Amino acid sequence: MSKILVVGSLAYDTVQTPFGKVDRALGGSANYFSLAASLFAQVRVVGVVGEDYETKDLDLLKSRKVDTAGLQVTKGKTFHWAGSYEGDMNEAITHATELNVFEKFDPQLPSAYTDSEFVFLANIHPDLQLKVLEQVKKPLFVGMDTMNFWITGSRPSLDRVLKKVDVILINEKESMMLTASPNAVAAANRVLELGPKAVVIKRGEYGFLVCTKEGYFILPAFPTPMVIDPTGAGDTFAGGFFGHLASLKKAPTTEDIRRACIYGTVLASFTIQDFSVRALQKVEPSAFQQRLKSYQSVVATNGLF
Amino acid sequence: MSKILVVGSLAYDTVQTPFGKVDRALGGSANYFSLAASLFAQVRVVGVVGEDYETKDLDLLKSRKVDTAGLQVTKGKTFHWAGSYEGDMNEAITHATELNVFEKFDPQLPSAYTDSEFVFLANIHPDLQLKVLEQVKKPLFVGMDTMNFWITGSRPSLDRVLKKVDVILINEKESMMLTASPNAVAAANRVLELGPKAVVIKRGEYGFLVCTKEGYFILPAFPTPMVIDPTGAGDTFAGGFFGHLASLKKAPTTEDIRRACIYGTVLASFTIQDFSVRALQKVEPSAFQQRLKSYQSVVATNGLF
Repeated sequence: MSKILVVGSLAYDTVQTPFGKVDRALGGSANYFSLAASLFAQVRVVGVVGEDYETKDLDLLKSRKVDTAGLQVTKGKTFHWAGSYEGDMNEAITHATELNVFEKFDPQLPSAYTDSEFVFLANIHPDLQLKVLEQVKKPLFVGMDTMNFWITGSRPSLDRVLKKVDVILINEKESMMLTASPNAVAAANRVLELGPKAVVIKRGEYGFLVCTKEGYFILPAFPTPMVIDPTGAGDTFAGGFFGHLASLKKAPTTEDIRRACIYGTVLASFTIQDFSVRALQKVEPSAFQQRLKSYQSVVATNGLF
Repeated sequence: MSKILVVGSLAYDTVQTPFGKVDRALGGSANYFSLAASLFAQVRVVGVVGEDYETKDLDLLKSRKVDTAGLQVTKGKTFHWAGSYEGDMNEAITHATELNVFEKFDPQLPSAYTDSEFVFLANIHPDLQLKVLEQVKKPLFVGMDTMNFWITGSRPSLDRVLKKVDVILINEKESMMLTASPNAVAAANRVLELGPKAVVIKRGEYGFLVCTKEGYFILPAFPTPMVIDPTGAGDTFAGGFFGHLASLKKAPTTEDIRRACIYGTVLASFTIQDFSVRALQKVEPSAFQQRLKSYQSVVATNGLF
C-alpha cells in the first residue's frame, strides 16, 4: 500500500450555521483529510498542535492507523478558526483566525516519512508547502490546495509550488482569482499553464470540475437535502481523492483522477451532514460503497446518448 | 410528428454584459423556445406582438416551419425588457420591464392548435397559462415555467397550474422560493408534492437537476469558457427539452425526460455564446450532434464505478 503524506492544520473550530453551533470542535484540513484518506490507504500526518490539544483527538487519528509521528506538540494553543454560514451555505464568513502555534510552524519530517509516494500539501503558507515537499525523496504524485490569502499575499512562493505539483484542488472562486478568469471553465485551462497536469475545481453543492490535457470531466455533488455544516467538505474531498489514488499503488492516469474525484465528492457528502468530523468519523466502508452506488444512479447516462 | 404548442413572450431586449451591449434585439421566451424546439419538432406559437414587430423577426420563425397563426399583432409596442449581467453572470439585473401589448394579452388558440399533444406554458401570468391549457383538447404532456413575480404575487393561480402540468422547468433560486427550501435538492422533492410528476431545476453554468419518483438525475452544463450573454438560456433549454420529447411521438418516460434535459443543456450552450438569438438561430443539426458528443465525453462515467 502506498503511503500518503499530508501537511495541514489540526484545529479547533467554532462554527455557526442555520442548524446550530459548535464551540471549539475538532477541525483542520489535516484532520478531515486523514479521516477521509485512511478509509482507503495509510496516512502520515505533519502538523502542529498546542498543549490544549486533547488526547482523544489524537487517538481518533491513531484509531484509523494514521501515523502521527510527524505531529509537533508545542507550547501554546492550537489553531482556532471561528466562522459561520448563512443562506445557501456556499461560503463561510470568517469571524476569527487565531493561528496560535501555527504561527511559527516549521515542518520537519520524521525520516520514516521521506519515502512517501503520495503527498498532499493542504492549505498552508506556500513556503511551508515547499519546505515539506523538499524533504520527500521521490514523490510519485503531489497535490496541493491554496486560498485567497496566499493568492494575493504570497504569489511568488505560490507560483513555485504550482510548478512542483501534479494536481491542484482548489475552490471555484479561488480558481477564478488565481487566474483572473470569469468562470471555472476558463480558470481550469489557465491553471494548467501554471504547472499542474491536473486541476480539480471544488464547487460545493455543484460538485467538481476536473481538467487535464484529455479535457474536462464535470459532475455534480451527491444530492443532499439537508446540509448541516459544510466545513471540511473540501478537505474530505481531497482525502477521498488521495486515498483512492494511493490505494491503486501506481502513478495515476486521467481515468484514475476522474474516479478519485467521485470518491472525494461522495465522501464529502457525509461530512456536511453534521458538525465537525462527527459524520465523517463514523463512515464505514459499507456505507461509503452504498452511497457510491446511489451517486452512480444520479449521474448515470447509459442509454441517454 | 407530434406538435408542440408554446405560449410565451415575443420581445425586444436591451441587454448589457461585460462583453458588450445590444439595443432592442430579438428576445422573449417564445422566440428562444421556438428556435430551439423547431430543430427537432414542429412548433405552434401563441403570443402577442406590437405594430413595431419586424417582419424579418416573424420570417425567422417561419423559416423554421414554426406555425405563427396563433400570433396576435396588436396596436401598440412589443414587450420590451432591459437588463444587465455582471461578475459571474449567473443572474440578470432588470432595469426595465415594459409590458406594452402584453398587458392586455388574451390568448386565443386557432382551432387548428387545439389538437396539440405537447404544450409548454412559458413564464407568463399563471391565469394566462391556465387559459391556454383549457383550450387544448387532449394534451399528452404539459410543461410550465414561472418566476419570482408570480410566486409571490399570484400564488393561488400558480398552484392551480401546478396541479395540471406534467413537468415544471424552473430556475434554481425560484425553486427554492416556491417551496421555501434551503437548496435545490430539497426544493425538487417539495415541488413534486405540488402536482408535477417531474421537476427540472435549471442551474445556469452548473447545469440541471431533474427529480421524478425514480429519483434525482443531475448533470453540469456544457463547459463554456466564454459566456457572452446568458439571456434566453433557460427558454432554449425548454425548447430543446420539448423538441426532443415531441420527436419521440409518445408519452415521455423518465429516461426520455432525462435525455431531453441533455438536449436542453447542450442547446442552451449555443445561445449563451452570443447576444440575442444570434448563435441559436445558426445551429445546424450537425453542430448540435457534434456538441452532444463533446458533452458526452465531459460527463461519461464508463469504467469509473
